[in-house]
Parts: sequence; C-alpha cells; structure tokens
Amino acid sequence: MGRWGPDARGPLEQAAVALCLKHGYAQVTVVAIAQRAGFSERTFYRHFADKPEVLFAGFQYFHDNVVHLVTSAATSAAPMERVAAAFEQAGAVFPENAEQLRQRQGVIDSTPELRARELSKVATLTAAVTRALLQRGVADPAAMLSAEAGTLAFRIAFATWINATSQEDWPRLFRQTLDDLGVVITSAVSHGTVSVKRPRVSI
Amino acid sequence: MGRWGPDARGPLEQAAVALCLKHGYAQVTVVAIAQRAGFSERTFYRHFADKPEVLFAGFQYFHDNVVHLVTSAATSAAPMERVAAAFEQAGAVFPENAEQLRQRQGVIDSTPELRARELSKVATLTAAVTRALLQRGVADPAAMLSAEAGTLAFRIAFATWINATSQEDWPRLFRQTLDDLGVVITSAVSHGTVSVKRPRVSI
Repeated sequence: MGRWGPDARGPLEQAAVALCLKHGYAQVTVVAIAQRAGFSERTFYRHFADKPEVLFAGFQYFHDNVVHLVTSAATSAAPMERVAAAFEQAGAVFPENAEQLRQRQGVIDSTPELRARELSKVATLTAAVTRALLQRGVADPAAMLSAEAGTLAFRIAFATWINATSQEDWPRLFRQTLDDLGVVITSAVSHGTVSVKRPRVSI
Repeated sequence: MGRWGPDARGPLEQAAVALCLKHGYAQVTVVAIAQRAGFSERTFYRHFADKPEVLFAGFQYFHDNVVHLVTSAATSAAPMERVAAAFEQAGAVFPENAEQLRQRQGVIDSTPELRARELSKVATLTAAVTRALLQRGVADPAAMLSAEAGTLAFRIAFATWINATSQEDWPRLFRQTLDDLGVVITSAVSHGTVSVKRPRVSI
C-alpha cells in the first residue's frame, strides 16, 4: 500500500474505496469496510469519527506532512516559498499511490456529501498552514495569503494531476500552477478601475 | 431591506437570521421562519430546497450578479480584470446590508453544517464564473485560474470586510487583496527548487 497512510487507516481507506466503487457510497456500511480490511467496527471508530472520514485517511496524512514541512522549513525563505516547497515535497507520495488516489477521487467526486467534506478538509489545511507560519514568526496577512494561495495551487494542480492520462511530474505541475496563478492575478493588478496603493503585505 | 435579495427570499433570510440569533440554528424550524416572515411553509419550499439554503439567499443574489457582470463584460479586458471588476461591482450592495450580513455570517460561522454549505456555494460560484468566461471565448486554464483567483480574493476580502470595526471601502479592499495575493505568489515564483518554464497560460 505504499507510504499512503500508516497503520490501520490506510487499509481501511482502501477497503472503503473498493467497496464504494463496487456498491456505491450510500450502500456501504462501516461494518463492511472494517470486515473487508480485517478489523473490527470498534477499530474503525478508533481511527475515524464517521463513515465519510475514512475516505480522507490519505488526505490527513498529506495534511500532517504539509504542516510538518512548513513548520520545519528554514525561515530564511519567503513564507510562500516555504508553503510551495511543502506542497511539492508532501506530494512525493502521489505517484506510488496514483491508482488508489484516482479511485478514491472518483468516489468523492460522485458523492455530494464527500465533495463537501473535501472542501472542509482543504479549508482546515489552509488554517493549519496559516497557524504553522504564524508560529514561525510570519506576520498576517502574509501567513494567511501564502497558505490560501498554496492550498489553491495544490487543489488546482492535484485535479490536473489526477485527471491526466499520462503521469505528470508533481513538483513541476504544482510549481507551474502557482506560477500561472501569479501571472493571471498580475494581469489584472494595476489595470483596475480602482487605483491601488503600494501593497501593504510584507513578505 | 435594501437591494439584498428580491421578493420573498430576502425577508425569509432576514427572518431566519433573526430566529437563529435568538434560539440557535438547530432549534429553528422552517415553519417558524416562514411564519415570522409572513409566508407559508409552502412558499418557503418554493424558494429554498432546505433549511440551510435560506441563509444563502443573499449569496445567491450576489452569485447571479457576479456571473451576469462577467458575462456582460467587454472582452477587450483581460479575463482576470473582468472577474475582478465583477466582484467589485457586485459588492456594491454590501454597505447598505452590512448589519444583516454581519448577523448572517455570525450564524454561519457558528454552525459547521452552514460553514460546509458556504464552502460549497463558493465552489459553485467559481465553477459558474469559469463557465461564463469560457462562453465568452476565454480559453482554459486562464478561465479557471481567473475564476479561482477572483473567488479566493473575494473570500479573503469579504472576511476582512465583515470583521472590520470601521467600514472599509469594498472595491478598494477587494483590489488590495487581489494585489496582495499577486505579490505573495510572485515572491515564490522563480525561487523554487524546480526550474519553471515560461508560463503556459495565455491571458
């Protein structure tokens, strides 16, 4: 199962994805997921608060990695650079888990409840990255803006990566997406109907 | 009630906010909301699919305005500029509805179910703005990136606006936020561990 999720969490997520693909998310029970993975229902609930949560075991692992990398990054780099490097490096596990990630995303994309949960997970990651930067001495709004921009670039790049027919290089794709976002945003700045003062954000 | 929401939708949202502030979201029923606004339960369900939806009547109005403005913008401006101008202009109704918006946000922020619904609404707006740009001849990924960046700047600027003690000028605040995002993102670009080719995005 590669490095995508330690202990019982990874196998439980894999079992959940397999069952959801076969029967549909609504039809799958926690008991069935636990049984297929070789664990008890009790073990399931020791790891996950509810059924939808099991489909985000891998995301939680990714979340923790990103936050750890941001927290341990050298403070000599710009906050945005620390965030970008964290998303690049935490995504190193994507290729070896590509098929599992693709199946899992298929289940999420076809279930409104899971799509909503995914948006909440991404928002939680943004908040955690912001906190990590603040703890490392970055001031707001730079901390929040770097976290928001990094998470947005991750979301867009991941959707591209997972839907690509050939496997794209994750760090290159992430960096390209962030770069593209900068190009697009800058195309509006200074062309607006409102005159903009010098940026108040300090990096 | 200003121009924040036409017909029965505005009054129903106002009634819902007032009742939620008084009793808590979980305790408020659709019947109570309809009664307070002077409408029947049937009228409520003609306008809203479920209880949480009533708290997004104003947002739906804003959504429709943004999409209309993007759709009717001159194609001579860059896609990002069209999106930015739309968010600026659609926010013209914020000041006259400031108190209602603040109360409504208080209800949403204190209810996980509503926070999740809000994230879905914002994602739906991003998708609608992307479609509007594509229909007006903008290519992807520029359409999607402009929509994502615009929606992100809106989300950040709106959170700042609604929490400000003195009332900030919405167009200036939105433009400043977008500008700040551009500054922050560009601070990482070209400093990465991965060499980035020329941006593939065409504006």
